[in-house]
Parts: sequence; C-alpha cells; structure tokens
Amino acid sequence: MVRRSSKAASSMESPASAAPNPRPAALPYYVAFSQLLGLTVVAMTGAWLGLYRGGIAWESALQFNVHPLCMIIGLIFLQGDALLVYRVFRNEARHTTKVLHGLLHVFAFIIALVGLVAVFDYHRKKGYADLYSLHSWCGIVISVLYFVQWLVGFSLFLFPGASFSLRSRYRPQHVFFGAAIFLLSVGTALLGLKEALLFKLGTKYSTFEPEGVLANVLGLLLVGFSVAVLYILTRADWRRPPHAEEQALSMDFKTLTEGDSLSPQ
Amino acid sequence: MVRRSSKAASSMESPASAAPNPRPAALPYYVAFSQLLGLTVVAMTGAWLGLYRGGIAWESALQFNVHPLCMIIGLIFLQGDALLVYRVFRNEARHTTKVLHGLLHVFAFIIALVGLVAVFDYHRKKGYADLYSLHSWCGIVISVLYFVQWLVGFSLFLFPGASFSLRSRYRPQHVFFGAAIFLLSVGTALLGLKEALLFKLGTKYSTFEPEGVLANVLGLLLVGFSVAVLYILTRADWRRPPHAEEQALSMDFKTLTEGDSLSPQ
Repeated sequence: MVRRSSKAASSMESPASAAPNPRPAALPYYVAFSQLLGLTVVAMTGAWLGLYRGGIAWESALQFNVHPLCMIIGLIFLQGDALLVYRVFRNEARHTTKVLHGLLHVFAFIIALVGLVAVFDYHRKKGYADLYSLHSWCGIVISVLYFVQWLVGFSLFLFPGASFSLRSRYRPQHVFFGAAIFLLSVGTALLGLKEALLFKLGTKYSTFEPEGVLANVLGLLLVGFSVAVLYILTRADWRRPPHAEEQALSMDFKTLTEGDSLSPQ
Repeated sequence: MVRRSSKAASSMESPASAAPNPRPAALPYYVAFSQLLGLTVVAMTGAWLGLYRGGIAWESALQFNVHPLCMIIGLIFLQGDALLVYRVFRNEARHTTKVLHGLLHVFAFIIALVGLVAVFDYHRKKGYADLYSLHSWCGIVISVLYFVQWLVGFSLFLFPGASFSLRSRYRPQHVFFGAAIFLLSVGTALLGLKEALLFKLGTKYSTFEPEGVLANVLGLLLVGFSVAVLYILTRADWRRPPHAEEQALSMDFKTLTEGDSLSPQ
C-alpha cells in the first residue's frame, strides 16, 4: 500500500521523478524492438549499397561506399547500443556496465574513423573538395564532440581519482550531451543519405525510382531507431535502480554519508 | 541542512531525480540564448530567401519561398517556444501556462499549414510530383503526429473531464513525443534546406558558393537552437516546481489523497 502511494505521488509531479522499477516487464520488448530497427537499418544500408551502388571495396569508386556503411554501424547502431547499456544491464555491477559502455563507444569510434578515412581518401583520389557541405560540417562537429565526450567521460568515470561530488555534478551533462550527439549523428546520416541520393538521381528522384524509395524507407527507419533508443533512455521508471552496495564502494565517503540517509530508493 | 542532504542524495542517483529549484539563477540566460538563436534562425532564413532566392510572394516561383519561411517560424521557432513555456513561466498558475502552451502550438500549426499549402500549390502550378522525397515523407509524418499530439493533449489536459490518474499516466508520453516531434521537425528542416541547396547549386555547392556557406551556417544554428531548447527542457532542477494549491484544485480527490503524503516536494 505504501509502495503504491509512493509511485502515485511520484508520477503525479513529473514523469522524471518516477521511481525506478527494479524489473520493468515491458523494457525487454522495447529493447528487442530497438535492436530489430537498428539491425534492419544496417542490413538495408548494405542492401542499398549492394543493389544500387555496386557494393563495397577499398579501391575505385566503391571506396566511397565504405563511408555510409561504417558510419551507420559505428555512429548509429553501436553508439545507440552504447547508450542503452545502462538500461539493458540494469542489475549488473556498475563498474562492469561502465566498462562495456566505454568499450562500445571505442568500437563505434574506430569503425567511424575507418568510414571517415574512406571518404577523405576517396575525395583525395578523385580531386573533390572536402568539407563544403552541411553534412560534412555536422560530421566534423560530431567527431570532435564524440571524442571529447569520451575522453572526459573516461577521465571522470573510469579513470580513478575523480571525486564523487565532481562525478555527480558532471553526470547530467554527460547524459544530455551523449543523447544530443547521438541525435545529431542520426540527423547527419539523414543529410548524407539525401546528398548521396540527389547527387546520383537528381530530378529522377521525383519519379519514385526504386533506389529513392528504398533510401526514403531507410531514412524513416533511422528516425524510428533513434526515437526507440531515446524513449528507452528517457523512461523515468526504467532508469537504473540505485544499489546501496555500490554507493558504499565510492571513494568520497564524506559526500556519501551526508546524502545517504535520504537516498530516493 | 536537511535540504542540502536531500539534494545531494537526489543528484547522486540520477540527474532526472534532482529536486526542482524554485528560482534557478541561470535559467533566464539559457532561455535568452535560445531565443537569440531562434530569432537568428528566422532572420537568416529571411536573409537567405531575400538575397539568393528573390524574396517572397504568393505568385510565380516566389511562392515556393513561403514554404521554408513558414515552416521555420511555425514548426521550429514557435514549436520550440511552446515547449519552453513550462520552464519560462514556472511560477504562474498551471492553467494559464497550459493555455499559452496550447495556443502557441495552434499558431505554430496554422503558420505551418500556410507553408504546406504554399508548396503543394506551387508544385501543382509547376506540374511537379508531390511527396517523393525523404523530406516530404518526414514532413507528412510530423504534420499528422503534431495534429494528433495537439488533439490528445487538448482533450486530456485542457478540456475538462479527464481524470487525474489518466492525465498522470499520459503526461510522460505527451512530454516525450512533444520533444521527439520537435527534434524530427528540426531534422526535416535540415533535409529541406539541403534539398533546396542541391537542386539549385548542384556541383557548385563544392566551390564554397556564398549561398551554400550561408545555408550551412543556418543549418548549424538550427541544430544549436534545438540543442538549447532540449537542454532547458531536460535539466531536472529547472522543472516546474509542484504547487500544493494546484494539486488541491484537481478533480480526482481520491488519487490525490492517496499519493499526497509522499509527494517528493
């Protein structure tokens, strides 16, 4: 009875203050749906490049195709999954979850770097100008922000030494900018897709060419994946429940003791 | 002392559980910055259309230009500001704030409708195909979602009759999908901007034409506006503080009494 009242009071004020639910029944279905969308996006990107762009290679004009595939796998699918780690592994040890989150971002960044090298190398060989489009400007901004976010996150949350209070103050910024960088990555992918379509199809785009329709569907699925990831991340009652034993492992005992008795759990 | 401990405990667990601050000192500066960005976006769209596209009229090829201007004013600037109403008027009566939020969305939707009529009418006169591009597909999805979101929001939150518990259950969904529709609107605007550039400039885009550079800067400012709005919306301690006297005005006294004693305030 007290438990029920507590939940009613929380949701009454604001969705953000709802208490985390230790075992949310619907979460696995939403995660599975997001993964289905993410994998379909990767598969459809491969199908698009295979069916309409001659496939993938590091040589010739096919080198360009390495770029969209790597960016979709790295900066969309893996980056999205790195954000979901804290919801999927809600009851694992916090340190293990952190390491997995950091590692997924490393893999995402390495794969994205291969994609970046591919497009710059292709431009160089063809004598094309670099960094003139909105897609490329957004892409460069994201690459820098992604690297800085990872570095600051690693220094404060994984590398030992940062105080508990500094971590607490920085955590909301890390979460916000993580989500913002992910959404900006999706927006940049949509711009790139549109650019690739218009450069090749031109006015034929308006005749509902199969490639154009496939790419439009791919664009909508990209949006769907980002909405699914964002929904899972922002559901207040799906947040990771606080673990008393992990709080006890913290280095900053003074701050901890001060706040411990009023922990919202 | 108790207050301080309570805040420390909240921020320790998760940013989303931080207690709302009754008078956040930094909020007005962030809101002012978002408005500066939003107004710059509107002004720059006008400058782009005036300098490089021959200005605006309901006749001739200039009718097309009504579309980007109306969409930027309605579905970007006014929609963003409608979301900020609950942060800007944090201490006004909840009903007044709700009415203002609903009205801003009505203005946004009417202006956007003018923009939609302009482009469909222009296409009809020119004999162009409709709804073939990813930009148009996203635009139609947004228009439908925006209308449904407004209708359900009006029915549950402004039209009397919905129970307190139904409102509480729907509120998180309304907030999430409101933010998602806003972000999708920004993404769609970027796609449209890119489309307008590539159709006109073609390969000249890569020679850093002044119009291309101006449009790229406009795109980055659009992204900046959306990030600023999202930051203000999601800062946990900038949420609207709960008012006991407003809770007492609620219709569903049973649910209220049940949850009242454990209110997080």
